[in-house]
Amino acid sequence: MQTGAKTGPGVAPARKLQSGIVGLDVMLAGGFPEGNVVLILGEPGTGKTILCTQYLHWGALQKDEKGIFFGMNEPKARLMAEMQGLGMNLAKLEGQGKFAYVDATEVRRIPEQTRVGRIPVGGRELGLANLLDLMQEGIDKLSPKRIVVDSISDLVFRFPKLEDRRSAVLDIVESLQSTGATCLLTSELMATGDVRTLQPEEYLAEGVLLLRIVKKGVRTVQVLKMRGSKIDTMPRPFVIRENGLDILAKEEVYP
Amino acid sequence: MQTGAKTGPGVAPARKLQSGIVGLDVMLAGGFPEGNVVLILGEPGTGKTILCTQYLHWGALQKDEKGIFFGMNEPKARLMAEMQGLGMNLAKLEGQGKFAYVDATEVRRIPEQTRVGRIPVGGRELGLANLLDLMQEGIDKLSPKRIVVDSISDLVFRFPKLEDRRSAVLDIVESLQSTGATCLLTSELMATGDVRTLQPEEYLAEGVLLLRIVKKGVRTVQVLKMRGSKIDTMPRPFVIRENGLDILAKEEVYP
Amino acid sequence: MQTGAKTGPGVAPARKLQSGIVGLDVMLAGGFPEGNVVLILGEPGTGKTILCTQYLHWGALQKDEKGIFFGMNEPKARLMAEMQGLGMNLAKLEGQGKFAYVDATEVRRIPEQTRVGRIPVGGRELGLANLLDLMQEGIDKLSPKRIVVDSISDLVFRFPKLEDRRSAVLDIVESLQSTGATCLLTSELMATGDVRTLQPEEYLAEGVLLLRIVKKGVRTVQVLKMRGSKIDTMPRPFVIRENGLDILAKEEVYP
Amino acid sequence: MQTGAKTGPGVAPARKLQSGIVGLDVMLAGGFPEGNVVLILGEPGTGKTILCTQYLHWGALQKDEKGIFFGMNEPKARLMAEMQGLGMNLAKLEGQGKFAYVDATEVRRIPEQTRVGRIPVGGRELGLANLLDLMQEGIDKLSPKRIVVDSISDLVFRFPKLEDRRSAVLDIVESLQSTGATCLLTSELMATGDVRTLQPEEYLAEGVLLLRIVKKGVRTVQVLKMRGSKIDTMPRPFVIRENGLDILAKEEVYP
Amino acid sequence: MQTGAKTGPGVAPARKLQSGIVGLDVMLAGGFPEGNVVLILGEPGTGKTILCTQYLHWGALQKDEKGIFFGMNEPKARLMAEMQGLGMNLAKLEGQGKFAYVDATEVRRIPEQTRVGRIPVGGRELGLANLLDLMQEGIDKLSPKRIVVDSISDLVFRFPKLEDRRSAVLDIVESLQSTGATCLLTSELMATGDVRTLQPEEYLAEGVLLLRIVKKGVRTVQVLKMRGSKIDTMPRPFVIRENGLDILAKEEVYP
Amino acid sequence: MQTGAKTGPGVAPARKLQSGIVGLDVMLAGGFPEGNVVLILGEPGTGKTILCTQYLHWGALQKDEKGIFFGMNEPKARLMAEMQGLGMNLAKLEGQGKFAYVDATEVRRIPEQTRVGRIPVGGRELGLANLLDLMQEGIDKLSPKRIVVDSISDLVFRFPKLEDRRSAVLDIVESLQSTGATCLLTSELMATGDVRTLQPEEYLAEGVLLLRIVKKGVRTVQVLKMRGSKIDTMPRPFVIRENGLDILAKEEVYP
Repeated sequence: MQTGAKTGPGVAPARKLQSGIVGLDVMLAGGFPEGNVVLILGEPGTGKTILCTQYLHWGALQKDEKGIFFGMNEPKARLMAEMQGLGMNLAKLEGQGKFAYVDATEVRRIPEQTRVGRIPVGGRELGLANLLDLMQEGIDKLSPKRIVVDSISDLVFRFPKLEDRRSAVLDIVESLQSTGATCLLTSELMATGDVRTLQPEEYLAEGVLLLRIVKKGVRTVQVLKMRGSKIDTMPRPFVIRENGLDILAKEEVYP
Repeated sequence: MQTGAKTGPGVAPARKLQSGIVGLDVMLAGGFPEGNVVLILGEPGTGKTILCTQYLHWGALQKDEKGIFFGMNEPKARLMAEMQGLGMNLAKLEGQGKFAYVDATEVRRIPEQTRVGRIPVGGRELGLANLLDLMQEGIDKLSPKRIVVDSISDLVFRFPKLEDRRSAVLDIVESLQSTGATCLLTSELMATGDVRTLQPEEYLAEGVLLLRIVKKGVRTVQVLKMRGSKIDTMPRPFVIRENGLDILAKEEVYP
Repeated sequence: MQTGAKTGPGVAPARKLQSGIVGLDVMLAGGFPEGNVVLILGEPGTGKTILCTQYLHWGALQKDEKGIFFGMNEPKARLMAEMQGLGMNLAKLEGQGKFAYVDATEVRRIPEQTRVGRIPVGGRELGLANLLDLMQEGIDKLSPKRIVVDSISDLVFRFPKLEDRRSAVLDIVESLQSTGATCLLTSELMATGDVRTLQPEEYLAEGVLLLRIVKKGVRTVQVLKMRGSKIDTMPRPFVIRENGLDILAKEEVYP
Repeated sequence: MQTGAKTGPGVAPARKLQSGIVGLDVMLAGGFPEGNVVLILGEPGTGKTILCTQYLHWGALQKDEKGIFFGMNEPKARLMAEMQGLGMNLAKLEGQGKFAYVDATEVRRIPEQTRVGRIPVGGRELGLANLLDLMQEGIDKLSPKRIVVDSISDLVFRFPKLEDRRSAVLDIVESLQSTGATCLLTSELMATGDVRTLQPEEYLAEGVLLLRIVKKGVRTVQVLKMRGSKIDTMPRPFVIRENGLDILAKEEVYP
Repeated sequence: MQTGAKTGPGVAPARKLQSGIVGLDVMLAGGFPEGNVVLILGEPGTGKTILCTQYLHWGALQKDEKGIFFGMNEPKARLMAEMQGLGMNLAKLEGQGKFAYVDATEVRRIPEQTRVGRIPVGGRELGLANLLDLMQEGIDKLSPKRIVVDSISDLVFRFPKLEDRRSAVLDIVESLQSTGATCLLTSELMATGDVRTLQPEEYLAEGVLLLRIVKKGVRTVQVLKMRGSKIDTMPRPFVIRENGLDILAKEEVYP
Repeated sequence: MQTGAKTGPGVAPARKLQSGIVGLDVMLAGGFPEGNVVLILGEPGTGKTILCTQYLHWGALQKDEKGIFFGMNEPKARLMAEMQGLGMNLAKLEGQGKFAYVDATEVRRIPEQTRVGRIPVGGRELGLANLLDLMQEGIDKLSPKRIVVDSISDLVFRFPKLEDRRSAVLDIVESLQSTGATCLLTSELMATGDVRTLQPEEYLAEGVLLLRIVKKGVRTVQVLKMRGSKIDTMPRPFVIRENGLDILAKEEVYP
């Protein structure tokens, strides 16, 4: 996995890749720019995982595009059962070679401090290295067009110093950029409210979607950033229905 | 107690388990998804313990479902007396083998730094290990369908570093997930107000209920998250009556 | 002094003990549940000490109930003179054996670091141990039905780490619970404003009264929590008159 | 200088000492309770020093009451010239033995770390001890009825830990209480705005006046606390005129 | 590269250099004062890089003014592809010797701690020194009239102490000032919202543009500061169109 | 340079020194009290340097009063060019012996830790000592009536501990007070917004002007404090025109 490749895949962001979520594709003027690494930043309960799985499922089912899911939050069975409940049969797609789940939950269990031979190595650097290895391996096998990493929070929260966190996120982003695939990366918001500390991943990713819960419990999605694409920047309400996210791309949250 | 079991109980969240609190079951479209680990996050005086006990009491009395209460906040006699005052006879259910109280108050008394043989062990890790052991033991004896842990705050506040706190909560959540039971876990809010720092347990649990006191002293409950279930996400007012929580699932808090 | 006694006094919270402050008893639907440990949390100048002394004075004068005041903020003479000015003759009650003042002001003067034999002991642990000893001694002598500790702030502010503060407060609360008396514990708010950091004593006490000064200088009291009792949770205005607190239990602060 | 004397001066707060500032005496229902230690907490430019000097000047001129000014902020000549410009001839009162200025500005210059014989002593403890000595000396000479310490901020800001700051303020307050005089103590607010962190001196003093600048530059004074006295708790506007503070005790700041 | 040159280029700020972005030149009363170092401070997704590239592109194409881009955020190919999508053919200008890209992405990869001979050198100082060297080298080759550094955040975030960060920014600013070119420097905002911590680069730069996203997703640009120039200080809305930033210099954001 | 002189210059604040900025002199009821040390506290881009230079320029040109500018932010040539653009010919005044610029920019370059003989000396103490020496030297040569120090921020930000910062500011203020000149001292605000942390220099200076940018980009000046003078305390709008600051002393910012 090369970092910062100067030529190669990922440099022509004009073409669009549909997310398959109707309202979101409206907000994105057609979809994600191909090759972009997009951050899905959200509060708990805002459907980050569902959005990402819909993205993979729709691509595989409708476009025959291979997708890979690197799961750090929940084991395969639990994800598949939950998505089954939302009408997505991932097992079938897996059988057809169009979907793969890579279990990366172990990465967050790497002990704080370990030893490689006689050299002490911080668990967090190892955790990051392991994730990058797992990703490379999975990508080599499947050559996916769509990639999801859900989520990077467990990993980056191990780096409390801002400059280290930046660096860790950068490693992940550049690894993903070098694949040429269009990638979604979820991350957890650290606080609720309109005013928030900006997290380094918002600057390093090429696109940012912000998922929040506002007064009266309304869920909203806002496209804050999308390099190489016209976007609708207004926050839009959405609901989680029995078949996934339903984004009301023409409705306003604030009157 | 296995962690992160890939198959087994807890993977079919479609079936619902009634909480027995009428308004809450309305908000949850029938109840908690079976096998979910749900966080009850609330300010002091918002009835977290009452909600959890009603959940166990109703299940045992109306559905013959066994329930276990891991108590870290108050000894058995005090809990039982208080709940008796709210019309719940836990002693009777205990006699029928449908309710068990496990006294885990000692866990928060584990000294800061202790020794296992010649190895120094932080009291906090030991406290966590003790809780997990106590839980496993209690669960093995009763095979409960409903579990309550009230509360995890004493334990997790011992881990001031975010990454350690995440890890401790994860251990508890995965232990509970592996039982297949539907579990409520209480935790204390660290500040009042509409804008709040998000706590790691909100991301790690599969469901989150938020109990707050708003202007003019009105108590509110909001379902922020519930994997595998349609939910009403609006905050709803409730009162604590002589027979427990009364949630006004059709009333709005903000006009 | 046992901690966490499983049976014994304090487990039947149904009976009420009148505070003797008319408006407060209205808000509490008759008074404090017997055996409860109640936190009186307030800003400076909100009458925490007056409220507590009225509680003891009324009980002794009207109900012949013994009361004890553990004073950490001011010496006996100063308290008595001030209360005399509010129409309370504590000296007379003391002469009748119905009131006792225990001077605990020395507790906050325990040096930071001291030595017991050859073992260094932090002044703060010693301060806490001293208070617990003083309390036990006073309680053994008088067997009071009403107890006041005014205030715990000097002691708990010595524990800047949240987990240590929790533990210190827990020691005090459990000591008081084991007496069977109904106890008021004052504590200082750390900031003004509607949004506040929740302090561990709010979770550990069985009841919480919040005394604040709002816009235009209006003083308010709010019952945030009272285990085992129906309560009026709305903040109510009060004034400090020549005979103590006058709570306007039917008036609203916010229109 | 004894601390915490149980009997003696200062225990009969019913008698009032006029401040000599008309509007303030209205807010205080006649003046400061005799023997009280009152904190004058304010933003820069709100006239803390003027208020205190008016208090001393009026007492000496109108009531023949001796007053002493412990100055930590500015040398004698500067204070006297400034007050002369506001119509107060302190030099004349000094000549009559009714006013004394004690220069305590050196206290804030005590080096951070010094040595007493071979024992290292923190400069801050020494600074505090020096102030207490200076105060005792001045008080012994003049036997004042009115005392001003302007300000304690330089001293207490040397104690960044809350518990140490509390202890330092307590030493000053108790020293002043033991004199039987009525004392004003100025302190600096750490931030502007309606919501503020409460400083330990607000709890330890027997009275608190808050001086602030609100929107549109209006200066306001609010009596937050005054043990042993009925008070007007509403914030009132004031202006600094050529003869000192003019408090509009009947006007409201917020409509 | 001299720092703080007392005479020489850059001291006659009266002449203006058009940015080429119509609305911005209106706000700036003609353009940037020649020789100024201007900070472009913005949230993610506000088009900082696009603004800077438009500035270089327009100058080269319309005025035959040489421009250099020091890129720390993305490799050359990625930048060029993205800008191509916005109608800017940088490759052509590069071929004509009117545009140069200097890849400074490696600067942010300098390891935390390295050794020069036997002397340990912090990676951050080295990173800064490397950037200054790269800049000097590039400037010597091209003698540009327009310079962009995009962005300084990776570098300055390595200096968590405010005084070190100031010093690092100062080194960069003075190096750029000594060139006589008109320079844009991008930097990342650390938080959203109307109230913000001021960053040292805002004081050290001679001009500041603030790019934000406000309620409803509207992007705004505000000229906070521009030494030697009349400016329009009101925040103005802008959109990112297929040919770059379109600033609505006559429209108001707040009604 | 003596500190804290008890008699001598600077003790008769009744006389006023016109600032030469018409609106400001209206707000100050004639000008700055002679001998005062006044803090000009402001956000970036609010014209702190222009205000100070106008003060010196006007005094020299209209009143033949000598003025000295201690520059820590920009070298002489840059300042002079910028001010020339605002219609102020400082070079001419310098030639007439009525204006002097002292370059103090080197002070902020003193390395963090240096050695005087064999004694390690913190760079920050050295920086402060150097500034005081430079100031004394300049003052001895010119005997100015008007002094500007622009700005103290680089120096005081080296003292992150509040108590050290206080002490450093105090040294500068007392040095300036002892000269008898009327002095302006600029300092940088650390955050925007109506609510702010109060900085020690606001308490230590005898006057404070606050320069801010409010909603819609309006610049405002507010006189927060001015010992020995009646002031207009309302914030007033101002604009930076081609001939300097124009303060609209009769207009209100908030309707």
